[in-house]
Amino acid sequence: MLGTMQDMELRVPRLIDHAAREHGMREIVTRWFDGRVTRSDWAGIHRDARRLAQALERLGVKPGDRVGTLAMNHQHHLTSWYGTIGMGGVLHTINPRLFDDQLAYIANHAEDQVLLYDKMFAPIVERMKPQWTTIRHYVCFDDGEFDALLDAEDGDYAWVEGPEREPCLLCYTSGTTGDPKGVLYTHRSTMIHALAEMQPAVFDLDSRGVALPVVPMFHAVGWGLPFAGAAAGVKFVFSAINEAKVLCHLMNSEKVTHSAGVPTVWLAMFQHMDESGEEPRHLKVVTIGGSAAPRAMIERIMKMGVRVNHAWGMTETSPIGTMGAPSPDWDDLTFDQKVDTTVRQGRVPFGVELRIVDDEDVVLPRDGVASGRLQIRGPWIIRRYFRAEEDCVTAEGWFDTGDVAALHPDGTMQITDRAKDVIKSGGEWISSVELENAAVGCPGVAEAAAIGVYHPKWDERPILLVVRKPGSSVTPEEITAHLVKHVAKWWLPDEIHFVDDLPHTATGKLLKTAIRKQYKDFKLAAA
Amino acid sequence: MLGTMQDMELRVPRLIDHAAREHGMREIVTRWFDGRVTRSDWAGIHRDARRLAQALERLGVKPGDRVGTLAMNHQHHLTSWYGTIGMGGVLHTINPRLFDDQLAYIANHAEDQVLLYDKMFAPIVERMKPQWTTIRHYVCFDDGEFDALLDAEDGDYAWVEGPEREPCLLCYTSGTTGDPKGVLYTHRSTMIHALAEMQPAVFDLDSRGVALPVVPMFHAVGWGLPFAGAAAGVKFVFSAINEAKVLCHLMNSEKVTHSAGVPTVWLAMFQHMDESGEEPRHLKVVTIGGSAAPRAMIERIMKMGVRVNHAWGMTETSPIGTMGAPSPDWDDLTFDQKVDTTVRQGRVPFGVELRIVDDEDVVLPRDGVASGRLQIRGPWIIRRYFRAEEDCVTAEGWFDTGDVAALHPDGTMQITDRAKDVIKSGGEWISSVELENAAVGCPGVAEAAAIGVYHPKWDERPILLVVRKPGSSVTPEEITAHLVKHVAKWWLPDEIHFVDDLPHTATGKLLKTAIRKQYKDFKLAAA
Repeated sequence: MLGTMQDMELRVPRLIDHAAREHGMREIVTRWFDGRVTRSDWAGIHRDARRLAQALERLGVKPGDRVGTLAMNHQHHLTSWYGTIGMGGVLHTINPRLFDDQLAYIANHAEDQVLLYDKMFAPIVERMKPQWTTIRHYVCFDDGEFDALLDAEDGDYAWVEGPEREPCLLCYTSGTTGDPKGVLYTHRSTMIHALAEMQPAVFDLDSRGVALPVVPMFHAVGWGLPFAGAAAGVKFVFSAINEAKVLCHLMNSEKVTHSAGVPTVWLAMFQHMDESGEEPRHLKVVTIGGSAAPRAMIERIMKMGVRVNHAWGMTETSPIGTMGAPSPDWDDLTFDQKVDTTVRQGRVPFGVELRIVDDEDVVLPRDGVASGRLQIRGPWIIRRYFRAEEDCVTAEGWFDTGDVAALHPDGTMQITDRAKDVIKSGGEWISSVELENAAVGCPGVAEAAAIGVYHPKWDERPILLVVRKPGSSVTPEEITAHLVKHVAKWWLPDEIHFVDDLPHTATGKLLKTAIRKQYKDFKLAAA
Repeated sequence: MLGTMQDMELRVPRLIDHAAREHGMREIVTRWFDGRVTRSDWAGIHRDARRLAQALERLGVKPGDRVGTLAMNHQHHLTSWYGTIGMGGVLHTINPRLFDDQLAYIANHAEDQVLLYDKMFAPIVERMKPQWTTIRHYVCFDDGEFDALLDAEDGDYAWVEGPEREPCLLCYTSGTTGDPKGVLYTHRSTMIHALAEMQPAVFDLDSRGVALPVVPMFHAVGWGLPFAGAAAGVKFVFSAINEAKVLCHLMNSEKVTHSAGVPTVWLAMFQHMDESGEEPRHLKVVTIGGSAAPRAMIERIMKMGVRVNHAWGMTETSPIGTMGAPSPDWDDLTFDQKVDTTVRQGRVPFGVELRIVDDEDVVLPRDGVASGRLQIRGPWIIRRYFRAEEDCVTAEGWFDTGDVAALHPDGTMQITDRAKDVIKSGGEWISSVELENAAVGCPGVAEAAAIGVYHPKWDERPILLVVRKPGSSVTPEEITAHLVKHVAKWWLPDEIHFVDDLPHTATGKLLKTAIRKQYKDFKLAAA
């Protein structure tokens, strides 16, 4: 027996139809590269998206074909999402910060047919064209080229219909090893994720919201905001450049209430605030994700009277995994306790499930003590990478995130390390991140890296590489004396070495792979 | 091509799994008939629901079978929802306020196998048993009977899986004419509705919320709160009796932040507040639905610093159709303007669509002026009544709500009348509700009813039946002079008659069918 309610495929174009119909006059503001500010609205994006759908069909794009974008955040980029998906295509956001061989690989692997790009990325396009073998049409978003494409169409267009399990969006992860891997989202996964994102415990979005996503639309698919924003009918404010001064002015002139970005965005904003005395005055909710937000950052934003959402997720998780929103006992907490809570990465929204497992895949307790490989499953989590031969999940659907975490009894999750960085000593795990965080709390220590090195009895033991602060003469004994106050005794590094500097990734994280490679034949003096 | 995300059927039991796993310690508080207060939590409801699922199977209930409840709001009723649905059954909430012939009809029509009932409704059960032909087992929620049923089971149970389009819930509408009609909700419709309900523009629910649904769980399926509440992980506070004093005490002792009920609940609460000097002190969001909330009620609640959600919906719409939450320009509005906004019934959340049509089914503009029959469609709207021979919607899925409304350019909807009460004069519509509301604003008028009577030229013309306030000698001329300030001239009633009283329904609404019947052969003096 089946129920007798109406049914309709959960397709992404319904979002832009809804936004245009119910929130048509809600503005979409863009601050372009050159400083110009233009204004459209949801009705305008809806009209433009239908014209783009017609234009793509005229260019020979068929349902299922991929259309690439190489662009920052602006109204035309938003239009390209809804126009491409609306004509049945798959929107493929390309990260312009990738290396050339990655750029070549992913556009060819995706078999992109059309590339829409920002003028500022024209040098990349010119350089890559000879290597891109499937792209037949290049359209620049600037200098009237995109406008001309739309102006040739009348917008009298009905979205392509189809099953909700068809793909709509493609985004590649750029791992540090191997080729990038594509995540192919379905209409269904995207829609369920968008519905979940609006709730108060996630982005807390309604039509009163004025959202400035600092996160680029090519990063983990813009954290889903272009979809959830349409469902909620927010006013969007886009900035094509992410300079703190520009963002701060825009946040104030457009009365931005919601923003979202990686931690470095806020470091830059703090610097601007300190130098200029300005600060964003209308913010209510700031979401920080991409990597763990430092405690001091959370504190400072909360002191501005702003709610901090500490998010965890990845391209493979659409990307919302958990969100560190206010807890049930929030109003009874002291400020410091509120910060303690927010430092954790929060809870899953309804839909996804977490578990932690040990090296033998035994499920560990949710006791806030055990720490294990974090796995996730749910209707907006990856099953298989694009064009892969097999699934990347267990038979029960668990996807291994590569993070190590603890799960607390109240449901909150706390990332303790990356799985590949964890130090495995005598069958137990030592968190390199916790050792490093404890070490940098020691006076005289500028930066520290903890890695595991071979030990004949314990398999691995930690060593600590320390960069001293200028003028400091801190000793290994002083550092150890400091560490013993913060970590278990058996976690203490067997050796502490001072180095002049440590290698970093492009985004400023420690490049552990390089450090481990450098120390792979290291012999402990006492082993 | 299909996308490569994970997939899982959207089934209701995932809600209670989520609540138990992520918010297991969040309390479920019940204030019973006899004044006892008991406490469970989401983990407890989860355990009990699994035991009930086992017990129902032991009683011979099969997936797809209907299990009836005749009960007020309490933890056992909540358990029965999840236990029944979890074993693949269809939970059928029965309104104990129905007439005997309706009670007989719907339990037999639903073919209920088991009835779970409150002791306070035992007289109904004893009276109806001879007429109920399909119910094989009666279990009282009280006196340890329900507990004993659960205590015989160990709770080691895995929910029945199946397609998301299977039914999970059945609720009958009790129209004033004809037999009651059943709405058979699917897991899918229920889940999409629950996700939508959490958002800030609807119930605004997260795990910080403490929700006391005054709306009974048998009324339009408890407005979906038992589902959305689990998804959000709220603390629930249930009261098995709806006495204002009890509710007010409970709201304060349990720090209730969210409540929901029909307007009469708040009239009773105001009376209690006036008499006792007490008031609910922790409320943040009050949702009023079921019938239009009077302006004065909205004003008074808003003056308490509480957000008023003015909801519109019906059993056929799961029930959320629209929600009158704060508008984008909210912070710039004066208090009176905020009330003006809230008096309207608000916007649709993403998922449902509205339109208004005239007598020839021509779609009318969304200009805030045109008024027509309100139609709705979407993934949580009815397609066909239970066991009906044909669909109750148009080919494009539009369900005619029986309401007459205007749609404003900003997306807000305003109910102007019930379709069957509208007065059709010369091809144009006159709202009986607006005439009545204008009339009761005239000094000396206690109550007024406007109905259409036959007119040879205009088809219908309005007459107004007025009950004077005690001691008043207001004249037809004075009433007309008042009306002309509030309605179009051609809306003015052709005749005004004074009557001693007017007939009402059980819930206090004007019984227009009876009035129209009484005046069906009325002849206008001037016609």
